[in-house]
Amino acid sequence: MHRGTNLPAVGSFNQSVILELIRRAPEGISRAEIAVRTGLVPQTVSNAAKQLLAQGLVMEAGTVIQGPGKPPVLLRLDPQSRFAIGVHIDPGFITYVLLDLRGQILARSMHRTPSATDPKAVIAEIAEQVDSLAKAAGIDRDRILGIGLATPGPVDAARGVMVDPPLMLGWWNVPIRDAVAAATGLDVMFDKEVIAAAAAEIWFGEPSRRDFALVYLSAGIGTGLVLDGTIRRGATGNAGDGGRIIVNDSGVPDAPSQQLGHLVTPEYLVQQAVREGILPADADVETGFERLLTEAEQGRPSALAVLERAGRNLASAVLTLVNILDIPEVVFAGPYWPRLRPLVLPTIAYVVQTSPIRSTRHEIRFGLSRVGVEVGAVGAACLVLDTVLSPRPSSLLITDRIA
Amino acid sequence: MHRGTNLPAVGSFNQSVILELIRRAPEGISRAEIAVRTGLVPQTVSNAAKQLLAQGLVMEAGTVIQGPGKPPVLLRLDPQSRFAIGVHIDPGFITYVLLDLRGQILARSMHRTPSATDPKAVIAEIAEQVDSLAKAAGIDRDRILGIGLATPGPVDAARGVMVDPPLMLGWWNVPIRDAVAAATGLDVMFDKEVIAAAAAEIWFGEPSRRDFALVYLSAGIGTGLVLDGTIRRGATGNAGDGGRIIVNDSGVPDAPSQQLGHLVTPEYLVQQAVREGILPADADVETGFERLLTEAEQGRPSALAVLERAGRNLASAVLTLVNILDIPEVVFAGPYWPRLRPLVLPTIAYVVQTSPIRSTRHEIRFGLSRVGVEVGAVGAACLVLDTVLSPRPSSLLITDRIA
Repeated sequence: MHRGTNLPAVGSFNQSVILELIRRAPEGISRAEIAVRTGLVPQTVSNAAKQLLAQGLVMEAGTVIQGPGKPPVLLRLDPQSRFAIGVHIDPGFITYVLLDLRGQILARSMHRTPSATDPKAVIAEIAEQVDSLAKAAGIDRDRILGIGLATPGPVDAARGVMVDPPLMLGWWNVPIRDAVAAATGLDVMFDKEVIAAAAAEIWFGEPSRRDFALVYLSAGIGTGLVLDGTIRRGATGNAGDGGRIIVNDSGVPDAPSQQLGHLVTPEYLVQQAVREGILPADADVETGFERLLTEAEQGRPSALAVLERAGRNLASAVLTLVNILDIPEVVFAGPYWPRLRPLVLPTIAYVVQTSPIRSTRHEIRFGLSRVGVEVGAVGAACLVLDTVLSPRPSSLLITDRIA
Repeated sequence: MHRGTNLPAVGSFNQSVILELIRRAPEGISRAEIAVRTGLVPQTVSNAAKQLLAQGLVMEAGTVIQGPGKPPVLLRLDPQSRFAIGVHIDPGFITYVLLDLRGQILARSMHRTPSATDPKAVIAEIAEQVDSLAKAAGIDRDRILGIGLATPGPVDAARGVMVDPPLMLGWWNVPIRDAVAAATGLDVMFDKEVIAAAAAEIWFGEPSRRDFALVYLSAGIGTGLVLDGTIRRGATGNAGDGGRIIVNDSGVPDAPSQQLGHLVTPEYLVQQAVREGILPADADVETGFERLLTEAEQGRPSALAVLERAGRNLASAVLTLVNILDIPEVVFAGPYWPRLRPLVLPTIAYVVQTSPIRSTRHEIRFGLSRVGVEVGAVGAACLVLDTVLSPRPSSLLITDRIA
């Protein structure tokens, strides 16, 4: 049930509101400006600023001259006062990033997932890598706020458990959050990868961008949802299984299924290319997909047709998302997207904008992802930054009782 | 952007938290118990209670004996201190309800939509009906908090406009919210019907029920979404167009389309029944659908088969909702649902629980709607009650600046 809020919690909420504002003003912002923009009384702003300065999160940084009178001092985030580590576990690779408070990547590394059937070895490896990442960047461990961990679903988010990721044999019910916390001695936050990726898109995006779906294309398809400014995690942390959306597969006679996740994976597209005579029958997925993209880029009609069908299927899924959720924006991302984009986005956009089954009247925007291929790991680190830097009114509702 | 909060807004937030608690304790609750359950300090509870008593929203109602000492006084909602009116405009009927603060329906009426191609006549009619509803119940207009208005989509929720509802000719860009406010002199809140219906399900449901989809079956299909305790309205107030979800239509050779909304409407099911020889070729929708249901209730296999396919299609849509949103519960409602339920729910539940394409591991609950056929109108009234009685942390973020 809802709980009330006494002053201390409000204090820290206001502190977060102010910190968020300071973070988004890289040149600095005065206390007076903060008061105007937050609607808080100057005394409240002044007290909160004092606490932020004492914690070292904020520094005073020069003044601005604006007419007569004492020029106001500017407050600025001290981006190097604290750090967050993001780890993205994937069947093939584990990606590590070290972020400062500004979200800048100070260190990164990527390794083949060691013997993916043995979670224990992987966890030991993670602890080592986290250590060496911090050392390489020359950062004290006590300035690391924590580790964010992103893994494939399905997950049990409440217990921090990887349930049974399809492509990771031997990873059944692995309590990864607690295991990594024990192995590193650091606080660990945990989410499904596409949910972490959505956190990164919020973190690096405009604050006004409060409603969008992040369609993440890799070996499978995930759809991170940001609704009313909040990441949709779902009852068990498994929201966003976009690969299971049923789509209208236009044109393929004996498609294995009508789940989106079967119709636009590199594996399926390579199969289609083989069927169309674009690729030899023994083409493997990785090089075959590269080749298919190259053929399409060079204008080969049959290759373009395979990708056009993929675009139509993606458009069908986008329409379902838009019609159910009334979201104004869809962002595509993933390792293949930079090359896929010019080949499939025009089809997607055309089908979506002209579709008779789109129920909202406004055009759908197809925004650009703000983060690169490390979005899973960066998003994981953002989970940590979020808890420190972002104002969440929910924190008002979970204050401890004051006797 | 986020705004901070000064004390006055916190006061009214706390007041709402307390009022919500009092509302949910029909036998009354003591100030001490409120302090324990909200985590608020006794002085804050006492001040808020004083204000609620002064406004007449709450009354003192007897005491409880619990051991030695002065027995505590109980606070109880005065359900008849204020009222809300709900109006549901539909192509065929307009439904009116008058609710007290407990959500009890004190008066109701339903009329054929007068000359549905003429919005002006309908608006005049609404004003008259609202007046006579209040008079019939013997209620002063100044105790009416406002009118909630629910209409078919698509809507422009921000401007309170019905855009172009498919079955209401002549209703293009009707500024219904402001027109009804002008005609009645009352405050008007406005939402798409299935969104209003979701408000009713929240209002009358358990507070713990924070994540569900309301699948509303009538001439079309809507899906009201409640996510993390909040109604999903969407960027333009049009979330929940469940009829556009693409489904796997298992078994019908030349189905006109694979949109859910085409496959499970009474009109389509009657067509199928005609094709199967269950109904004569000239069967009209209303009596034909009744007849189909009767045949199925009596166990006629071909009639059961038509409904089983409808159940499979609904299950496919449920799977899409569950996989995208990770919701643990789906509630069906609508005028036909009481009769449809025993005929289609077993199929829906079986397909959903056993489906290999369900991505979450927990079973999906199929809950009962808490509201009857007037759910659109009741939900509209709940929009009004919500603004008065429910604690919304968002109100903390929109306080006016205090100079």
